Amino acid sequence: MYRTHNCGELNICNVNQQVVLSGWVQRIRDKGGMIWIDLRDRYGITQLMFEEGKTSEDVLSVVKKIGREYVIQVNGEVIERLSKNPKISTGDIEIKVSEIKVLNISQTPPFTIEDYTDGGDELRMQYRYLDLRRNEVKQNIMLRHKMSIETRNYLNNEGFIDIETPVLIKSTPEGARDFVVPSRMNQGEFYALPQSPQTFKQLLMVAGFDKYYQIVKCFRDEDLRADRQPEFTQIDCEMSFVHQDDILNTFEGLIKHLFKKVKNVEICELPKMTYSDAMKYYGCDKPDIRFGMKFVELNETVKGKGFKVFDDAEYVAGICAENCSEYTRKQLDELTEFVKKPQIGATGLIYARYSADGTLKSSVDKFFNAEELQKWAEKFGAKPGDLMLILAGKEEKTQKALSELRLEMGNKLGLRNPDVFAPLWVVDFPLFEYNEEDGRYYAKHHPFTSPKLEHINMLETNPAEVMANAYDMVINGVEVGGGSIRIFDNELQQKMFKALGFTKEQAEYQFGFLLNAFKFGAPPHGGIAFGFDRLCSLFGGSESIRDYIAFPKNNSGRDVMIDSPSLISSEQLKELNIRVTV
Amino acid sequence: MYRTHNCGELNICNVNQQVVLSGWVQRIRDKGGMIWIDLRDRYGITQLMFEEGKTSEDVLSVVKKIGREYVIQVNGEVIERLSKNPKISTGDIEIKVSEIKVLNISQTPPFTIEDYTDGGDELRMQYRYLDLRRNEVKQNIMLRHKMSIETRNYLNNEGFIDIETPVLIKSTPEGARDFVVPSRMNQGEFYALPQSPQTFKQLLMVAGFDKYYQIVKCFRDEDLRADRQPEFTQIDCEMSFVHQDDILNTFEGLIKHLFKKVKNVEICELPKMTYSDAMKYYGCDKPDIRFGMKFVELNETVKGKGFKVFDDAEYVAGICAENCSEYTRKQLDELTEFVKKPQIGATGLIYARYSADGTLKSSVDKFFNAEELQKWAEKFGAKPGDLMLILAGKEEKTQKALSELRLEMGNKLGLRNPDVFAPLWVVDFPLFEYNEEDGRYYAKHHPFTSPKLEHINMLETNPAEVMANAYDMVINGVEVGGGSIRIFDNELQQKMFKALGFTKEQAEYQFGFLLNAFKFGAPPHGGIAFGFDRLCSLFGGSESIRDYIAFPKNNSGRDVMIDSPSLISSEQLKELNIRVTV
Repeated sequence: MYRTHNCGELNICNVNQQVVLSGWVQRIRDKGGMIWIDLRDRYGITQLMFEEGKTSEDVLSVVKKIGREYVIQVNGEVIERLSKNPKISTGDIEIKVSEIKVLNISQTPPFTIEDYTDGGDELRMQYRYLDLRRNEVKQNIMLRHKMSIETRNYLNNEGFIDIETPVLIKSTPEGARDFVVPSRMNQGEFYALPQSPQTFKQLLMVAGFDKYYQIVKCFRDEDLRADRQPEFTQIDCEMSFVHQDDILNTFEGLIKHLFKKVKNVEICELPKMTYSDAMKYYGCDKPDIRFGMKFVELNETVKGKGFKVFDDAEYVAGICAENCSEYTRKQLDELTEFVKKPQIGATGLIYARYSADGTLKSSVDKFFNAEELQKWAEKFGAKPGDLMLILAGKEEKTQKALSELRLEMGNKLGLRNPDVFAPLWVVDFPLFEYNEEDGRYYAKHHPFTSPKLEHINMLETNPAEVMANAYDMVINGVEVGGGSIRIFDNELQQKMFKALGFTKEQAEYQFGFLLNAFKFGAPPHGGIAFGFDRLCSLFGGSESIRDYIAFPKNNSGRDVMIDSPSLISSEQLKELNIRVTV
Repeated sequence: MYRTHNCGELNICNVNQQVVLSGWVQRIRDKGGMIWIDLRDRYGITQLMFEEGKTSEDVLSVVKKIGREYVIQVNGEVIERLSKNPKISTGDIEIKVSEIKVLNISQTPPFTIEDYTDGGDELRMQYRYLDLRRNEVKQNIMLRHKMSIETRNYLNNEGFIDIETPVLIKSTPEGARDFVVPSRMNQGEFYALPQSPQTFKQLLMVAGFDKYYQIVKCFRDEDLRADRQPEFTQIDCEMSFVHQDDILNTFEGLIKHLFKKVKNVEICELPKMTYSDAMKYYGCDKPDIRFGMKFVELNETVKGKGFKVFDDAEYVAGICAENCSEYTRKQLDELTEFVKKPQIGATGLIYARYSADGTLKSSVDKFFNAEELQKWAEKFGAKPGDLMLILAGKEEKTQKALSELRLEMGNKLGLRNPDVFAPLWVVDFPLFEYNEEDGRYYAKHHPFTSPKLEHINMLETNPAEVMANAYDMVINGVEVGGGSIRIFDNELQQKMFKALGFTKEQAEYQFGFLLNAFKFGAPPHGGIAFGFDRLCSLFGGSESIRDYIAFPKNNSGRDVMIDSPSLISSEQLKELNIRVTV
């Protein structure tokens, strides 16, 4: 028996017991005469105590040879500590060791196994199994486990059935790039890895399963940005005989359940915001509503006063930063630099201070007198002490820039506390988005999303105005989930494919099995999918999903620990009937 | 709102209530004047009632147009039935329909949606979404869901953590063939899909996670036999600081929990049988111990009496079939034909009847008199009324054939009731198996399995005799799970690779990351993996795992429903830097 207890469970009640513990050596303190070892396992840390003269020479000689991260097993007696450590659950006791055994030795780790480690990102990824020993990373993985348990608990209770859908499926050119898998048994043919189980979950509704879910790996061969992974995990759900509100209610329930069980946070009813309001007031479709600072549109207010920047602009709008009227020149210059960064793209920043003494002063005083500025202040609802920040230009671009400025101000003013959670639904998305480059419409969500009933007649005549039965859940400026009520009518689905520029043959080739299934009594249905990695990182208060994945890949899609992808043998290639062309 | 209730929940307590139901039309019975429709959803069937003269003409005109598998919505009143149906939960009531709406039409399905359908295998696979509507198939998927829930409940309670391991990993030539995935971003390189998360779960133990599990898809590009799937699901587990018995106890607990919760069957302590006893008494390493009929070895008893078949044989053994002494000539001929089938491979069958009147008569009376036969009977422990069946030949081949004969007799005598469950552990497997063709040893489990401590010194000198800390769980002749205590010592792992004929470079190239990890304090650890598809089919009383997979592939690895694998575009191939050579 390697242990009678783990390293996190002994306390004052266990004093005088003989115990066996196993774990890793976290720390050794040799104070001359007394030696202490912190023994660590998943469950905690327990202090071991050795005393020259009292502890046997055999034991002491072993102790003197061991180092950090050695795996040891000890027998000993639980005793009360003289100086207690209230920070850990075992802090009242220590173990007076009578026997010790080295189960495995360890080289000195390439970085310290501490909360604040000296290891850089690359090194920690290469030795991920050591990085995972660090308390912080371990806690992230434990949080993910808890999230998974509570997600399942809620959905199981709601009558959802966990059904596994296949991983080896069929490539569909629509959407992002597929990863493909050459088939040895079907020469020259390929499977694809799923970007989502979308069509299969719809088939499960056709099959009558009524409520489906799965926590499932999905795959996208995209050029990776900082926070994307080629394989990622979704909470994937679908329901039959539902309207949009049924789905919103069910998954509002899920998110409340998760916040309650995992974070002990009570969430009130989620506000619903239309896509057009989100764009109007926050300049993006995933607004962070932990704070206000809504956009105020100023076109009417500021045009025609001779200031060319405003007069020529399609769109002038700003935000009001409370209690910032005394920002220094340097601070304002920094904000100007911020909005002028290429990724933000504004040409400049106009501001107006509403000083505490009631005076108004702007960066464009040449064109706007106090009276004019007073109108601005009214429009903004600004109070003495506030600062008005204004951008002007093309509407879409300016909205995006102002949205970034708003978030930046939120950061500066400490309004984006990661321990505060403000979820909402964004609804009434457009069905299509136009791609200038290709000169065609694409589905904003995917080709199975249903248009609003009253907009169906505009599918051909005015696609840009068609609204979808689609919804996103947004928390703290992060889109954590999205879905839609699906088309369940074969004829409407065909119309949709046509609007997306599919020929009948293309639609048949790619989605024939789904269109065919719709001929045999498809029920009304809809669903949602949550990005599980993202949801975990949000709950953990982090911006990086990688911290919540046990073995993530880097930005080139490489696993630097196992050194993958890698070359494969010519025999393998031959069997698969493929040749590498580089 | 599409429904106030589902089709499985209304009963006599709901009489007089106005309800809304939605579902599929299972059956329409028009008795002239009265029409009944069975409305079906996942939860059950509810009878709808329409009456000429009483039901409105509008409703009746709709009813007359609908057919099987139409999706309809009805409003109506719950009334007590005149002739009740005790077989279904809603059998006491029916719905007097006042409004009806067709939500979707259906073509006539290509086969009947009934327990006993007229659809052949191929057709049902092609329209799997309709096959899944059949009660039997639906129940299989629901059973799987329940198995998954209870597996998680047990393991979560035992402190296991569900951790996702990557799907895009690295190809390793050892073992079965890998499916590979060309990497676009890393030109000329490939990921592989995991045959199991073996190395990752061991790394998680090195990382200190202590107890890990995952219900996870795995992939093997093998030539498919009747009951193999290219993608399959495992319950994958690993524990640290454990000896073999700790693992057996933990997972004996799991299987007892599953039987109790899913089948309401109490399972006693699992017997442990050594591999060598399994081979000796059952001729295979996954014995069906629902019945006896153990092998009796007869070499000593039957040799040297002038019967060449026995005298020349390496191995003579038989089984005793109780109460079969009066088998007809025809029955015995059938058994002879059975053992002579190429896949069984015996050259003939010798039998001896122990008639109820006490006389003994064999198929080789020329060589064995009554006194000799009496010795046989004693050896077999046969009673009057029993039949002794004997095979002779090369040991391994004969054991295999006799094992098949034993199972066949078990079937014939009704001793293999799928509602009886007899699990056991098979332990003490050999570490290696010799492959005549390649002239080398292979790992019987995998290269990370530890040898018995006392056999380590035979690794180089006598590998055939080295026993492993390996174990299988067998239920009713099916291996449902297997695992081992792993090597956790870098030096021993190197020795093992050497015994398997790996060069140091090969071992380093393929498993370098694991060997490296073992240098940083790997704890003693071990684990097990269960074939989840197989386990579900066993619980369901079926021999086919395909029945327990929502969207299975056929024997050529094809999904005939979505028609995958398929060709991909030349653009895709070009981006991936590969060319097809067929």
